[in-house]
Amino acid sequence: MDNRPIGFLDSGVGGLTVVREFMRQLPHEEVIFIGDSARAPYGPRPAEQIREYTWELVNFLLTKDVKMIVLACNTATAVVWEEIKEKLDIPVLGVVLPGASAAIKATKTGKIGILGTPMTIQSDIYRQKIQSLSPETEVTGLACPKFVPLVESNSSQSSLAKKVVYETLEPMVGQVDTLVLGCTHYPILSPIIQNAMGPHVRLIDSGAETARDISVLLNYFQINRSRQAGEVHHQFYTTASPAAFKEIADSWLEQAIEVEHVDL
Amino acid sequence: MDNRPIGFLDSGVGGLTVVREFMRQLPHEEVIFIGDSARAPYGPRPAEQIREYTWELVNFLLTKDVKMIVLACNTATAVVWEEIKEKLDIPVLGVVLPGASAAIKATKTGKIGILGTPMTIQSDIYRQKIQSLSPETEVTGLACPKFVPLVESNSSQSSLAKKVVYETLEPMVGQVDTLVLGCTHYPILSPIIQNAMGPHVRLIDSGAETARDISVLLNYFQINRSRQAGEVHHQFYTTASPAAFKEIADSWLEQAIEVEHVDL
Repeated sequence: MDNRPIGFLDSGVGGLTVVREFMRQLPHEEVIFIGDSARAPYGPRPAEQIREYTWELVNFLLTKDVKMIVLACNTATAVVWEEIKEKLDIPVLGVVLPGASAAIKATKTGKIGILGTPMTIQSDIYRQKIQSLSPETEVTGLACPKFVPLVESNSSQSSLAKKVVYETLEPMVGQVDTLVLGCTHYPILSPIIQNAMGPHVRLIDSGAETARDISVLLNYFQINRSRQAGEVHHQFYTTASPAAFKEIADSWLEQAIEVEHVDL
Repeated sequence: MDNRPIGFLDSGVGGLTVVREFMRQLPHEEVIFIGDSARAPYGPRPAEQIREYTWELVNFLLTKDVKMIVLACNTATAVVWEEIKEKLDIPVLGVVLPGASAAIKATKTGKIGILGTPMTIQSDIYRQKIQSLSPETEVTGLACPKFVPLVESNSSQSSLAKKVVYETLEPMVGQVDTLVLGCTHYPILSPIIQNAMGPHVRLIDSGAETARDISVLLNYFQINRSRQAGEVHHQFYTTASPAAFKEIADSWLEQAIEVEHVDL
């Protein structure tokens, strides 16, 4: 038993899709979330800068005495997960391997597509992980630089969003039977993505897969929170405007949350 | 990547139900299994003896250079999992927590039944684990000392099996909505158990839950076997008669396996 909270970090609000799924599965665990919206998106930034920013988020979470850290951001995971996992003595989970592993199990044609930020696609991490487990699988990556700004600006329901998604995905349509949403922002666009790809393509939400894995690791390390530990008090932090963060988070998490601004 | 095999141990043949599920999920991983049928069942034995025997099985697996050990035996898990996990520097997984965790997620009435060997029920481990995660849940244990001998003697299809199962389960019928098969032998009896309990009771196969967790831990520790590592060669060992073991294992695993006798 360990009643401390679990820390989640993201470049912005996208990681809240992981938190949403996690809260649904384990409602008695406490969450501390920090989103770096002031510097989002991470995707187009150089690797060294992503590394530096992610460590700042990690160090912030460590000041909150978390028992586990989840990199709820594919870009951060691609660049720095292994290093952080190596250096900390608490479990550190990224979103890439759970998604890669689920995609391998899901595909029937052996043709998997990956949607991600430019950095995630450029890092080639999904293709490497998938092919190391399953070398015969064909993996096609597609950078979607316009998706995160749509989600961060809460425009995912707009007609612009539909236009952008359809145009971006055009080269992927008909090419794969399984499509990994390799950025935690993208599940917010998943109804449009599913329509664009057609009903037979299986979308893999890396965040939802990660939420399931968190539960397994809590058991394995025996660090579940006791249900006798009292009510949960989640904490949300953003490096940008709390009001803008709260508007998105309240809607996605379907509850009114409190958000604090923090300078890193 | 780590191409070494995964070691499974059991007091007898029951752990093969975990292996069966594991092979179905991850067919490219190699398995080394040892079953201590010569000294089965462990359930009625004193804890100190179970501890000693389980360590002998663990030490045998360590001589085979395994990358992970799965205690595919609820009795051994109840008595000695934490100690083994503490002492080894490879991951060690038991079957109790995955089953307990799945039962909590499955129950709607908050009434969970546990079937197990006398030692597992007496150890009270399932009730403790379930109530530490979910204190309001009612947990009722039922020792089923006649089940393992039925399975070990390959009599699970007999009319005697049906009679024994129905008589044993009588006090549990109508009392719970979720029933944990808290012994890896019991899934072999699950059609009869399901009939005895009625169609609305959800059976939780601890072994199948464990197989899923193994996959998550292989990812987390980055010790998956490469699919380029060549064909898999599973190894099966028993402390009793290889012929008797093979008869059961071939049928459960639906493949012809090679079995060696080993003295511990």
